[in-house]
Amino acid sequence: MSHRIWARYAVRTSQEPQRAAEVIAGEQSTGTFTPIPGETDELRERHAARVEAVRPAAGGWHELEISWPLANLGPSLPNLLATVAGNLWEVKQFSGLKLLDLKLPPAFLDKYRGPQFGVAGTLRLCGLSAGPVIGTILKPSVGMNPGETAALVRQLAEGGIDFIKDDELQSDGPHCPFEARLDAVMRVLRDHAQRTGKLVMYAANITGEIDEMLRRHHQVVRAGGTCVMVSIHSVGLPAFTALRRESSLVIHGHRNGWGLLGRSSDIAVSFIAWQKLWRLAGVDHLHCNGIANKFWESDESAVASARECLKPMFDVAGKGCEIMPVFSSGQTARQAPPTYAALGSADLLFAAGGGIMAHPGGAAAGVLSLRQAWEAAVQGIPLEKYAATHAELRSALERFP
Amino acid sequence: MSHRIWARYAVRTSQEPQRAAEVIAGEQSTGTFTPIPGETDELRERHAARVEAVRPAAGGWHELEISWPLANLGPSLPNLLATVAGNLWEVKQFSGLKLLDLKLPPAFLDKYRGPQFGVAGTLRLCGLSAGPVIGTILKPSVGMNPGETAALVRQLAEGGIDFIKDDELQSDGPHCPFEARLDAVMRVLRDHAQRTGKLVMYAANITGEIDEMLRRHHQVVRAGGTCVMVSIHSVGLPAFTALRRESSLVIHGHRNGWGLLGRSSDIAVSFIAWQKLWRLAGVDHLHCNGIANKFWESDESAVASARECLKPMFDVAGKGCEIMPVFSSGQTARQAPPTYAALGSADLLFAAGGGIMAHPGGAAAGVLSLRQAWEAAVQGIPLEKYAATHAELRSALERFP
Repeated sequence: MSHRIWARYAVRTSQEPQRAAEVIAGEQSTGTFTPIPGETDELRERHAARVEAVRPAAGGWHELEISWPLANLGPSLPNLLATVAGNLWEVKQFSGLKLLDLKLPPAFLDKYRGPQFGVAGTLRLCGLSAGPVIGTILKPSVGMNPGETAALVRQLAEGGIDFIKDDELQSDGPHCPFEARLDAVMRVLRDHAQRTGKLVMYAANITGEIDEMLRRHHQVVRAGGTCVMVSIHSVGLPAFTALRRESSLVIHGHRNGWGLLGRSSDIAVSFIAWQKLWRLAGVDHLHCNGIANKFWESDESAVASARECLKPMFDVAGKGCEIMPVFSSGQTARQAPPTYAALGSADLLFAAGGGIMAHPGGAAAGVLSLRQAWEAAVQGIPLEKYAATHAELRSALERFP
Repeated sequence: MSHRIWARYAVRTSQEPQRAAEVIAGEQSTGTFTPIPGETDELRERHAARVEAVRPAAGGWHELEISWPLANLGPSLPNLLATVAGNLWEVKQFSGLKLLDLKLPPAFLDKYRGPQFGVAGTLRLCGLSAGPVIGTILKPSVGMNPGETAALVRQLAEGGIDFIKDDELQSDGPHCPFEARLDAVMRVLRDHAQRTGKLVMYAANITGEIDEMLRRHHQVVRAGGTCVMVSIHSVGLPAFTALRRESSLVIHGHRNGWGLLGRSSDIAVSFIAWQKLWRLAGVDHLHCNGIANKFWESDESAVASARECLKPMFDVAGKGCEIMPVFSSGQTARQAPPTYAALGSADLLFAAGGGIMAHPGGAAAGVLSLRQAWEAAVQGIPLEKYAATHAELRSALERFP
């Protein structure tokens, strides 16, 4: 198995399931829609994809496991996509098809670098001995100029925040150019670090063309920053890999666009499979949505994604590519206890936008309310009880009922 | 309007449609889930997305038109994705959401190069005065070594084919490394050109990391080739743009993976919108599926995509970014007349794999049968009638009933 690529699918089809599995295996390796002379038995033996398992699943679906010889494509993520995904979603025989999981041979580790910082590196750079990292998103998403952005960052830094990120809508628009924003924000954060000893991690959204991303990464390094943010689906794996090769910073992976890939009830990919590609490519943080989020996703699904981020994806010591899951989307102090309970860990980045900025006491009180909520969660004290002696948490619970 | 980005959506929602449109406009510009201090009226005035139209559509859906000031993001394709798509598919209020179309301000033309060859350049390089370009996909998709691949290419070239492409599953696997395959194939094609004056266009699948793609592109140039193939969804826009900037060859865009984006009945993007991004980035050919294809897509949808490829996407003379649509997937001589009738043009690449290789008379007869079918189609002669005096077409019609 260690030289084979392995994928698990759920399919819905009126075909006999074993036959359906063979259609996938054929379409994605040696076959086409009609027998042709070159497809010899010997060639099939060496290169055909193999149906490893077929079993019934709930709701009339079936689960299939299929494997490919690595020799068909080599350890290449872009070409892996054409093999395990590619035209599969086009196949008429399937009224539903989901890629559920992937297992890759360790040969991929010779080519891709995996995360450079992950959980431990992020905590260290944030000056924390344990999670969670408390973070926020700069809002309004668009419209603030560099000076207004920096003023907001000052407020948040003084509020004691660990992590601040640009919105995914804010990268290098003419109204808030990347370089001017970076300069203004990092001046504030360096000053703050000088005074307090704490350098807030700023995930500067460098999403753009490759030359732009590399230039901006180097600008962040020169400005004394510790993190860059990339919208992974806007950028694609090869551009991401090119960035990772040059990067000396934490890479915060934003998954906007994910719904298009993962939400459909019939044609979809599971984030359990998808996140492995990005971890191998070298992301350090990945957005996993949050509990009671403002979006469509169920709590179970968000938590399963986050747990997966913390699990090794290769059985190779020190090379499991574990990363830090990011909880966000409509998060407030309310979600700390259920998040801690579901994840079984505080190794996460807990990001709130409105949940901090809309706190009646302002940003500092908003940050404090989240820390208090996590203290309560980790100590197993009910929020309402902890709020009795912690005013900021109390206001947060009133503001976000 | 010329400084605004414009998008059209179909949505299914239990909300009041005008309100739903405002949710999109808010989420994708200045808003978040709760009012926050910085979102002033003045900021909203300058930067908020605008609801341009709301109207009922069939099946309980509504169509929405929304526009954004270019100043929010600048002419950046990766950041455009975060704006017009991004988190939109996550919004709970929509049980269905499709991005139907896009209109971009011409400022994007200052940054992106568009297609370098398009229809006219492709026809010229293939030595044709008119379309269609008759093409094929090397099959079996995987398993042939470079020598076996070249032997098949010789057969096809001698059969009079215009265009040969690698399968999307074949890029640089250990069993058929890119460089050895390119050398073997181009030796055959150069010899053939020397003898006949016709250089077959070979779309060498360079899909991979950026450095690999650039290196392979340059190898194709040195080998005297005229075309490279890229799996666009494996590669992403920024890597594609980096390639286009360096490219002196026709870029054949393979859309494998498209089903994941376009097939779902509820969460999807239309190829009408999607292909514009890739044309602007500089693809010369794009796969559009084919009539009576082996996949799920309807003929109407495939034809609409192909017609769109031939239509200007900017009202700027000479910069419409028109490209050559590729018809493929289970194509045989049978599909020539309905394809010509539906497209209203022969400016296309007509690619058949099994439809050529499985012809009873071999590859040469397979190619000839397709040319004959297109002669009949363009002249308005029924296939069966034309077959009476054209043996290869006759065998093809018997083989593919």
